[in-house]
Amino acid sequence: MARDEWKESIMGSEKANHADVLMVNGLVLTMDEDAGIIEDGAVAVRDQKIVALGATRDLAGWRAKEKVEARGKLIMPGLVNAHTHLPMSLFRGLADDLPLEQWLHEHIFPAEAKFVTPESVGIGAQLSAAEMLLGGTTTCCDGYFLAHDIAAAIAQTGLRAVVGQGVIDFPAPGVHDPKENIHVAEGFVRHWRGRLPQVHPSIFCHAPYTCSSETLTAAKQVADKLGVLFQIHVAESRSEAEQCRQTHGCSPVQYLERLGLLNRQTLLVHAVWIDDNDIRIIAHNRAPVVHCPESNMKLASGVSPVPRMLSGGVVVGLGTDGCASNNDLDLWGEMDAAAKLHKAVSLDPTVMRAHEVLRMATITGARALGLDHEIGTLAVGKQADLIMIDLSRPHLTPMYHPESHLVYAAKAGDVSDTMIAGQWVMRNRQLLTIDIDALMRDANALGATIASLGLAQK
Amino acid sequence: MARDEWKESIMGSEKANHADVLMVNGLVLTMDEDAGIIEDGAVAVRDQKIVALGATRDLAGWRAKEKVEARGKLIMPGLVNAHTHLPMSLFRGLADDLPLEQWLHEHIFPAEAKFVTPESVGIGAQLSAAEMLLGGTTTCCDGYFLAHDIAAAIAQTGLRAVVGQGVIDFPAPGVHDPKENIHVAEGFVRHWRGRLPQVHPSIFCHAPYTCSSETLTAAKQVADKLGVLFQIHVAESRSEAEQCRQTHGCSPVQYLERLGLLNRQTLLVHAVWIDDNDIRIIAHNRAPVVHCPESNMKLASGVSPVPRMLSGGVVVGLGTDGCASNNDLDLWGEMDAAAKLHKAVSLDPTVMRAHEVLRMATITGARALGLDHEIGTLAVGKQADLIMIDLSRPHLTPMYHPESHLVYAAKAGDVSDTMIAGQWVMRNRQLLTIDIDALMRDANALGATIASLGLAQK
Repeated sequence: MARDEWKESIMGSEKANHADVLMVNGLVLTMDEDAGIIEDGAVAVRDQKIVALGATRDLAGWRAKEKVEARGKLIMPGLVNAHTHLPMSLFRGLADDLPLEQWLHEHIFPAEAKFVTPESVGIGAQLSAAEMLLGGTTTCCDGYFLAHDIAAAIAQTGLRAVVGQGVIDFPAPGVHDPKENIHVAEGFVRHWRGRLPQVHPSIFCHAPYTCSSETLTAAKQVADKLGVLFQIHVAESRSEAEQCRQTHGCSPVQYLERLGLLNRQTLLVHAVWIDDNDIRIIAHNRAPVVHCPESNMKLASGVSPVPRMLSGGVVVGLGTDGCASNNDLDLWGEMDAAAKLHKAVSLDPTVMRAHEVLRMATITGARALGLDHEIGTLAVGKQADLIMIDLSRPHLTPMYHPESHLVYAAKAGDVSDTMIAGQWVMRNRQLLTIDIDALMRDANALGATIASLGLAQK
Repeated sequence: MARDEWKESIMGSEKANHADVLMVNGLVLTMDEDAGIIEDGAVAVRDQKIVALGATRDLAGWRAKEKVEARGKLIMPGLVNAHTHLPMSLFRGLADDLPLEQWLHEHIFPAEAKFVTPESVGIGAQLSAAEMLLGGTTTCCDGYFLAHDIAAAIAQTGLRAVVGQGVIDFPAPGVHDPKENIHVAEGFVRHWRGRLPQVHPSIFCHAPYTCSSETLTAAKQVADKLGVLFQIHVAESRSEAEQCRQTHGCSPVQYLERLGLLNRQTLLVHAVWIDDNDIRIIAHNRAPVVHCPESNMKLASGVSPVPRMLSGGVVVGLGTDGCASNNDLDLWGEMDAAAKLHKAVSLDPTVMRAHEVLRMATITGARALGLDHEIGTLAVGKQADLIMIDLSRPHLTPMYHPESHLVYAAKAGDVSDTMIAGQWVMRNRQLLTIDIDALMRDANALGATIASLGLAQK
């Protein structure tokens, strides 16, 4: 949007100058390339949407049911966590620092086999939602099993989410016969499509090596037919890439392209073991990528060539991955890690600048999920998904550049307030949609049972 | 200390069973290899020291002026930040993501030349102290100029600190004639040695390439003569290592060894560009190292071979470096980065395990500074430098392994209380020794002046 159009959109909205919530005197970081940063800014919200934003003095004529003084605070779009496995917060720290196979086969898979139930995924999903809302994440993109129960649990919290039903050629929670995996996924999407504005159903194929070419193709066809996002882990580890080359004679990305799976609605997660040819393929097909630096580091998967993808025009969002491999859902730490990791590995301090990384965690992440028309920037007409950051902290004082502080110094705990679709879900660090004490009691009880069965690392 | 001696030390202390502070019902992580973790533990503090610790029931006979209920909290040693430049919190985010030379010559050096004064270093040091106390860091090891003013400012906050007076062969704040640099450093050490139990003076030679061999040798001789720590940046960047090889025909570590500079009281900071021979030299001379992963990443210095140093028996502590290159003083983030970075680079998930990294940030860091007889573990007779972590957080629920959560999930904001030498310096997130509002006003005023002179990045 050009600056003139943007001015006009404020003016247009000002005709009906009544808002539900009016935030004034804040430092407004719109993440919109034209609107930029508004030093003494105001945001007006009505129903689910932003109806005006600009300098506080320009919104002086606005009236609101709730007026919020935002002096000393920064107002920005809520963060977008483009890859999660929400229920895995129940397995956070179950085991760490182990060889991948041992970690999976002795701890994660047995715990999942026994403790992934309709009830537990609800608890885990809400626990994850609590952590995200407290940390200013307003949208996530999830992939797991029992997605119906996850979607229902998430809907109660107010979190905006793409919820993907897992597809894998093995028996899985809720899909005991793998032959049913596409059918279950299609049923899930059909049930949730258009049901709630904040829940976007999706299909999540686990990986090229855990799904046959028939499964991959059929799942993608269903996703395209229903117009939803198709998520897939790809080229996460060296052994996966080597195995793909042995089995299919090509890289994992080339394999997906040959199957006709790559388009704008194919979200490629990880993309660590990719070369320049793979990057050209991804860019050519306009498939978005999710970078999960902390998970890739902790699991020793390697370092994704993100600066080369960005130079190649690939849309790259940022994700935490599940809690078992991170071990948190904190996009502030993820931004910090993303900005620094690639500098260290390339020996170039100019890659992954703060502004670019902040875009990955907001508007670019939204674009990766196909939601950039709704969220990712603060702009008139967009959904009011926004957060306030308390700048009166020693570690944010003094401030020369807001974007530098957000990427390199701010913490999840600095987020004071979180709003999604015009509704406050967290105010002054208090969750409004989740009974956090009851939820933590439930999670602790589950954790105690898991530990008592000897599934945690000795 | 063997388990029997430890039991005896509890019993011995129980004879005089009166404490100033008695913490009960906490999860006590002693970081002592014998005492380990006490599930329902208690710690008794009298004067500056820990006078008893054990199971809560074993300390039932203790009386105290202040009894602290620690249910739902973890009690552990305060963290040790083994490398800081405290006043540089005033330059946090002044400029980022630039080539090193441009960052230094267009922003950092001009800002330092104009704004490093006795008053400003006091403000910057206290601002840094506030951040560290809020984040559970109870000891730091600093190197900067105007160290006298830094020491005086720090002493007011209660923080335990090694404070190093900078030595460099260029005019510097407080040392306009470089010929005076050793003299000034010696005067500083003589003034502060033994003056306050929590302030340990030290000499900080900036680097092998900014100090002549004569300066290095003379500074080390003074440090050894006075029995204080000698700190030096070494092998931080590839260009430094290459330049050393061109000038001296050897690696930076070999150069320091040839000058006779390496012993147990020589703290080698960074040690990024070192090879296996350098590691043998460091280990042979028992020189401790400080690893600053986030600074090395952000400045694109590279990745220090820390797992190889640890295998080689080198004592490696953890440091944040100054705020201009990190951009915070948060050891929780530093632990997380240290644990993950080396896994990604080595493609081995078993290196830098949580327990080892937690030791680096506590007892090993204390050992690097020569303070392990006083701090770094919770043990009877040691200084009562301890912190409490609030475990009732969504992102710490459930908990299978405390050490995993501390390294991979806990945040600075989870620290509820900080005690140094038996004195509370932070309780329930409130600083007790620092007027933080006044301090932030002063820091903001300074920051505004710095920005107004055009020294911040455009």
